[in-house]
Amino acid sequence: MNLSALGEFGLIERLARDLPNNPGQVVCGAGDDAAVLQAAGPDQLLFTTDMLVEEVHFSLTWATAEQVGVKALAVNVSDIAAMGGRPAYAVISLGVPERVTVEELDALYRGLRRTAREYGVNLVGGDTVACPDRLVINVALLGLVEPGRAVYRGGARPGDLIYVTGSLGKSAAGLFLCRHPETPVVPEAAAFARLAHLEPCARVQAGRLLAAAGVGAMDDISDGLAGELGEICRASGAGCRVRAGAVPVDPRVRLVAAAAGCDPLDWALYGGEDFELLFTVSPAGAARMEDKMAQAGEAVSLIGEITPAGDGMKIETGGVWRPLPARGYDHFLR
Amino acid sequence: MNLSALGEFGLIERLARDLPNNPGQVVCGAGDDAAVLQAAGPDQLLFTTDMLVEEVHFSLTWATAEQVGVKALAVNVSDIAAMGGRPAYAVISLGVPERVTVEELDALYRGLRRTAREYGVNLVGGDTVACPDRLVINVALLGLVEPGRAVYRGGARPGDLIYVTGSLGKSAAGLFLCRHPETPVVPEAAAFARLAHLEPCARVQAGRLLAAAGVGAMDDISDGLAGELGEICRASGAGCRVRAGAVPVDPRVRLVAAAAGCDPLDWALYGGEDFELLFTVSPAGAARMEDKMAQAGEAVSLIGEITPAGDGMKIETGGVWRPLPARGYDHFLR
Repeated sequence: MNLSALGEFGLIERLARDLPNNPGQVVCGAGDDAAVLQAAGPDQLLFTTDMLVEEVHFSLTWATAEQVGVKALAVNVSDIAAMGGRPAYAVISLGVPERVTVEELDALYRGLRRTAREYGVNLVGGDTVACPDRLVINVALLGLVEPGRAVYRGGARPGDLIYVTGSLGKSAAGLFLCRHPETPVVPEAAAFARLAHLEPCARVQAGRLLAAAGVGAMDDISDGLAGELGEICRASGAGCRVRAGAVPVDPRVRLVAAAAGCDPLDWALYGGEDFELLFTVSPAGAARMEDKMAQAGEAVSLIGEITPAGDGMKIETGGVWRPLPARGYDHFLR
Repeated sequence: MNLSALGEFGLIERLARDLPNNPGQVVCGAGDDAAVLQAAGPDQLLFTTDMLVEEVHFSLTWATAEQVGVKALAVNVSDIAAMGGRPAYAVISLGVPERVTVEELDALYRGLRRTAREYGVNLVGGDTVACPDRLVINVALLGLVEPGRAVYRGGARPGDLIYVTGSLGKSAAGLFLCRHPETPVVPEAAAFARLAHLEPCARVQAGRLLAAAGVGAMDDISDGLAGELGEICRASGAGCRVRAGAVPVDPRVRLVAAAAGCDPLDWALYGGEDFELLFTVSPAGAARMEDKMAQAGEAVSLIGEITPAGDGMKIETGGVWRPLPARGYDHFLR
């Protein structure tokens, strides 16, 4: 169905149906000038936003509209996870070109709703406007965290150990397969990588446990491990030493890399969008943190340690230490 | 300066300078994964978002980038005002085409900062991405309101009196002059109308007083008086009777309308973007509300009354009552 058959107000009414709204948290959801939310009690608020632009952050050539909805919310949830908080309330803005159909927007909202339910997020409002040329989605997300428990990027100290959750490079592997679907790789590996790229997961449970364990610094890996290490080192006034062999890469991602003729370490370091958590912990706290994470079924890998700022960022490959450039993805550099 | 000379991270650092951040409210502003904000105490939260798209909601042909920044924040503040709340925290997303210069983004942020200071808003973060073709600005705004005091659209009852703050049609008059700068009208009237369109004000003080006075329903006039009356009537299950002669129109807007050969009432009813408040109050509460507003120097005009739903929406012009179609601006209808 064409959008002009429905009109803006008809569309808003249609999209606002069955939004996840917990009555204990949402006094008034979508439909008024602003949503009204219950008092947050003693919790501090976390506030983040991310804009996704068609053919910059996603492509409807290989992602379904539902997957775009999943991703738009998940990348914001990941920011809340990286602070150690729990996501709570989101508002969604859509800039919609004329060619987009009502069914595509239904699917996009199906993805938003599914992801919201998965993470306990209330969808409480938004804005839907015409945007010729490109579909633009902005999500703003409000989270909650116990007072004083938020984990910042600047909390790393020389001697701290550096860990990551899960495995890296899977999103870059998936993007490669979206762009080169003819790559000869076993279906199970391809499916794993594509799903990691198209429907990323945010590590909320891991972030909550790590914040409670008092980790030093934490960041989500949206721009590649190297870029996020750079953020933590810069914010903390520190350097780091990382062992390439310790960077966790899923065997299925190695299969994709082999078929693609690419280096999976490159994907882990510079690929981005893995949305795992990168964090530091004091040597004294490491064993307890590892135990807690293991009990919760959350995989973590020790990949290196924080050094004084003067030492810069270094990576060891095959026994050789070399400088690790901290470049992440930059929207404006060419 | 070209954006590619600065890069995304250089740009973000530049834009994040001197953001209004009240240390009593902001624990950690822009620069980490999410902002950390003080607990809101017993207050309920208000959450709203608005997306502005170049050549749909604004044009750099007649607005300066600074004015675009003013407007992007003010339209969101207006939503919080319409709930009776006070605006508190905003995050800003920018989708930026290559042709936009660093100086233009500086100016846009100058407008955002100025408006944030004016309304006591903390600018606590955002996202800046590439968006070919068009500049897109999304603001998400968090406000606070005393528990139970938020004013909804659905609170109007038959017999209630209908009021508006300030005067209407001024933004449409300004837009006409932007499009037809050759219109022969006295400079003072032209300047008034253009400024109303390019740098709209949000009625936060009026909204706070009206919420405290216990008004029934309230809405900000973003889509024209007729459209907002329709929203209140629909949400309240009611109709309304409005007298055209009572709709407040500034004499300077009448001058512009005369020179333009347009009907100022049309601008008031269907022009939109005036960002005044439309509200209803019981006859018993009207005199006290009028006194309080007069004491605070806030102009209000009685324009009609709420009727039973079956009576529909009606307007009286020159002694004749006719139906008032509730159409507002629709992004997708043609």
